Amino acid sequence: MPTSLIHRQTLEFLLFDWLKADQYLHHGAKQMHNRASLSALLDRAANLAGDKLASCYRQADEHEPVLENGTVRMTPEIRNALHAMRDQGFFGLTQPFEEGGLGLPVLIERACFALFAAANPAVAAYPQISLACARTIQSWGTPAQITQYAAPVFTGKMFGTMCLAEQQAGSSLGDIETRAIPDGPAAYRLFGHKMWVAGGAHTMADNIVHLVLARVPDNHGNLIPGVRGLSLFLVPALIRQANGEAIAQNDISVTGINRTMGYRGLINCSLSFGEGTHRPGGKAGAIGWLIGPLHRGLAPLLQLMNEARAGTGLFAAAIASAGYQLSLRYARERRQGRAWTEKSAEAPQIPIIRHDDVRRMLLRQKCYSEGALALSLYCARLSDEESTAPDADLRRHATLLRELLTPVAKCWSAQWGLQANHLAIQVFGGVGYTKQCAAEQLFRDNRLNAIQQGTHGVQALELLGKKLRLEDGTALELLGETMHKTLLKAGQHTVLAAHGKHLARAMHLLARVTRQLLTDTQQERAMAQASPYLEAFGHVVVAWIWLDVVLCCEHVGGNTEPHFFAGKMAALDYFYLWELPSAELMLNQLAQAGKNTMHFPDQSF
Amino acid sequence: MPTSLIHRQTLEFLLFDWLKADQYLHHGAKQMHNRASLSALLDRAANLAGDKLASCYRQADEHEPVLENGTVRMTPEIRNALHAMRDQGFFGLTQPFEEGGLGLPVLIERACFALFAAANPAVAAYPQISLACARTIQSWGTPAQITQYAAPVFTGKMFGTMCLAEQQAGSSLGDIETRAIPDGPAAYRLFGHKMWVAGGAHTMADNIVHLVLARVPDNHGNLIPGVRGLSLFLVPALIRQANGEAIAQNDISVTGINRTMGYRGLINCSLSFGEGTHRPGGKAGAIGWLIGPLHRGLAPLLQLMNEARAGTGLFAAAIASAGYQLSLRYARERRQGRAWTEKSAEAPQIPIIRHDDVRRMLLRQKCYSEGALALSLYCARLSDEESTAPDADLRRHATLLRELLTPVAKCWSAQWGLQANHLAIQVFGGVGYTKQCAAEQLFRDNRLNAIQQGTHGVQALELLGKKLRLEDGTALELLGETMHKTLLKAGQHTVLAAHGKHLARAMHLLARVTRQLLTDTQQERAMAQASPYLEAFGHVVVAWIWLDVVLCCEHVGGNTEPHFFAGKMAALDYFYLWELPSAELMLNQLAQAGKNTMHFPDQSF
Repeated sequence: MPTSLIHRQTLEFLLFDWLKADQYLHHGAKQMHNRASLSALLDRAANLAGDKLASCYRQADEHEPVLENGTVRMTPEIRNALHAMRDQGFFGLTQPFEEGGLGLPVLIERACFALFAAANPAVAAYPQISLACARTIQSWGTPAQITQYAAPVFTGKMFGTMCLAEQQAGSSLGDIETRAIPDGPAAYRLFGHKMWVAGGAHTMADNIVHLVLARVPDNHGNLIPGVRGLSLFLVPALIRQANGEAIAQNDISVTGINRTMGYRGLINCSLSFGEGTHRPGGKAGAIGWLIGPLHRGLAPLLQLMNEARAGTGLFAAAIASAGYQLSLRYARERRQGRAWTEKSAEAPQIPIIRHDDVRRMLLRQKCYSEGALALSLYCARLSDEESTAPDADLRRHATLLRELLTPVAKCWSAQWGLQANHLAIQVFGGVGYTKQCAAEQLFRDNRLNAIQQGTHGVQALELLGKKLRLEDGTALELLGETMHKTLLKAGQHTVLAAHGKHLARAMHLLARVTRQLLTDTQQERAMAQASPYLEAFGHVVVAWIWLDVVLCCEHVGGNTEPHFFAGKMAALDYFYLWELPSAELMLNQLAQAGKNTMHFPDQSF
Repeated sequence: MPTSLIHRQTLEFLLFDWLKADQYLHHGAKQMHNRASLSALLDRAANLAGDKLASCYRQADEHEPVLENGTVRMTPEIRNALHAMRDQGFFGLTQPFEEGGLGLPVLIERACFALFAAANPAVAAYPQISLACARTIQSWGTPAQITQYAAPVFTGKMFGTMCLAEQQAGSSLGDIETRAIPDGPAAYRLFGHKMWVAGGAHTMADNIVHLVLARVPDNHGNLIPGVRGLSLFLVPALIRQANGEAIAQNDISVTGINRTMGYRGLINCSLSFGEGTHRPGGKAGAIGWLIGPLHRGLAPLLQLMNEARAGTGLFAAAIASAGYQLSLRYARERRQGRAWTEKSAEAPQIPIIRHDDVRRMLLRQKCYSEGALALSLYCARLSDEESTAPDADLRRHATLLRELLTPVAKCWSAQWGLQANHLAIQVFGGVGYTKQCAAEQLFRDNRLNAIQQGTHGVQALELLGKKLRLEDGTALELLGETMHKTLLKAGQHTVLAAHGKHLARAMHLLARVTRQLLTDTQQERAMAQASPYLEAFGHVVVAWIWLDVVLCCEHVGGNTEPHFFAGKMAALDYFYLWELPSAELMLNQLAQAGKNTMHFPDQSF
């Protein structure tokens, strides 16, 4: 089993013992795969992560992509790593067996990507975003579009991007101005400027398929304002003829590269559509095709964003995990200081893992990184249930639950994953603040995840303003029922019954505060509390995840070593002693908030 | 009044209305200065900060110092900024009027340095560290040493450094191995390797005076182990003859430069003493002289470290303040989205400061940055009281209180200052994650402050293990008495009486938990809680600071605008609603902690 930046035994335990990944194999793959073969696949992913991704982690940071004469130049190791992922089939894991894929659950894909992201999130982000695009095309495109623009992504030949934000419309997608003008029976010509396009320009794939949010004038030439008037377009970098040969570059140009704090191997740029820079004729417009219904681009867009958000949460967990593993190794080796009770200055120095304060920092990292990983993988399993559950009701339930938990998993992992990376640096001390230590870069990398794919503030409004109101609150009821099953199991257990009771109290409080906020006659006051509410919600959910994981660990019993179990138990205890009470405190404060305390003059800041 | 990265009205209010800075002028300066002239000095500092320091903030980050053939090359703007500070007399603010200084209180120096640090902490750190060295030499050196090595620092001609840590002894100073061998009646020859020397090598001053921690063999040639055997040495980079002319480089060489996450304009290097690289004869050793008593270097070392720690806290507050001011300006200008209650997609977008979630992020920054600044300035005033209070008892009390509060101010400012900088990025959104936004750099810069001059973990042991036990707990009693005065004033007030009662409860709880930890029969168990204890302690102290500031604001009344007061009141309310309860929760958890929850097998991580 190769050493990796994700604790391998924990990953396998979560996948197989807790989430039963092997039960979600696609039809054709059932005879091909079992736990052992999937474990061998994880070995391959871990080896690839170490050999090709981790090996260029610092390189990709030091030599960020640069724009030269309209072309992007980047360090060749990134290309090599991506081509190795492609060649080993890691773009096509979830594709049906019959179509050349491996027919594996989303869960297994996410597990592999966690290994990749822990080794090099910037590089792993290219396929992660590309796959989100491809699956959106798969869900909403025509058969020809799927063949031409989704299938090549699953073989790693084509990459994808999301072109959503614009300068005047960062978090406010309803304000985007890019226009798509009909051109013939099916095509459109796009004109506009897009920002923050991750993976927006490079030469590492045969083609790049951009999914672009734009507006189409109605029959009278008017634009429908707001999110209702949005449509999603498939706009390839290279336009191909029917015979598949490239004929021309589409009318898209790179107008700038963002130099970022971290994730520097992932090119992030501004793109201009329809500036005519590549076409002698001038303002021709970028050729594109509608994906999903006209003026109702929100549905395919949400699929795209939800998958990207799930990926963001997973990556945040993986980066946190990498910091945890690295600082843990250091703490075992680095000797410094003595026990508080040691009075002799001549006694040998001890490994810093023996200092309680260092242990606390490591244990907190374990709570955050493993909690975030478990939550992300749980959400991945919901994706699998959506396609494989035996009846429509169960599939629908999985969808609702995944919709509800996506902003929670994204934000919780980003917030506490960053905190974990902060603590990793702290364990290293001065070394952790230098470029010679990967923990330094991990911290910078993870800072992105609270912003990309919608900030915490946006996700909080999404949770409180939309997700909780889905189908009259069914999603929250479903979550409550699911958590209740864990409480029943915990109730049977001598030690864990106490944790169960504690969780039940927190759940009760969360339900009460949720009702209060949703029924507040002053919705503005309620919505002002969305961010702390999201934070507390996340903590209650992760408290449940930890309890469920430990119950499973206890149940599996003989298969888990005592040390493995003791570690999970220590993390659970820590979470229930130090973390869950903070969430309860926040919820109590939310319940008491009588007035909107943010109402004071702007000049008073 | 020049715009600056510290809210100027707040700074003046804290200095003059709250802390009465003008009452701490030195003897000779009393006729020269008053509030108006000191305010004019702050104008000069703010202008200099803007013109020379802020202007090269990004430059200093992008072009970090490099080592070329044993010489350090750095961007010339840093030199220009430092020479401007020197030429305008900012190195000598606190020196006696009679000796060419301005005879100003430490408080005013710190206020000026807060302005400098907000503009460019890496550059401002050179004089900050240099002054700590000079004052240590002033306290412990001979008159000749003071003339030769402290006086030139106060005129900005010589810079200073602290050479403490070694590879095998990072946080454990008792394990340092650098040796000092007597050479003649007064001099020593030093041999050893030092790490993390900030400002350790450059050509921006006529000379650099290093304060070096080392061990001297006793009469039998043996070394005394542990901190008891440490001595502090003055080791200049250039050795001068009695006539003042440089004759030779001392036997010190730069062995490496640390490339750091932030503070990149401040060179941070490893130095080798006594390698003989600069002296043809070989292993001659670096010439140095004892500062303070032999084998009892801890006393001068503590003075040096305490001042450096106070500076670290102040700088963390200043960096937080810069992020707050920048994100505040952005929030006022940037239009994005609409009110939750606005149903029309065609309504114009609103400045993001109108969104409650953004307001919360700004208000939190205000709480943290202004709270940290107030606490740091309060500690500076204690330094002034130590030298100016009318009787010895009061001076002694000021010392005890400053000793107690130094680790608290350092750690609280570093922890919550970084959190403020995190929120500043979040207000900017995607832009905040790019190099075009200073908030990105501020966050990286402030990450250092939880590490340098002793990590949180080290400071926590210092607080619980030493400072609280000083003179049988007198320091904590004094703090309690001081806080009690605030409670009495609050009790008279209709609105603030409630805050006072809340604070009194928190103080009572803190006192109870402190007693419990100090008298715990298992000191190892108690010391394992040092870090959360320090964190909670800091929150209670800052809650007191905020209440005292608002009481003063209320008292000054007519002099403060209503908007100014409303802002302070909003911050106070926020702190008491959301922050102080977290500290109380932590203290309650500490009180309940029955066993050391960090006791589980190392293999379980």
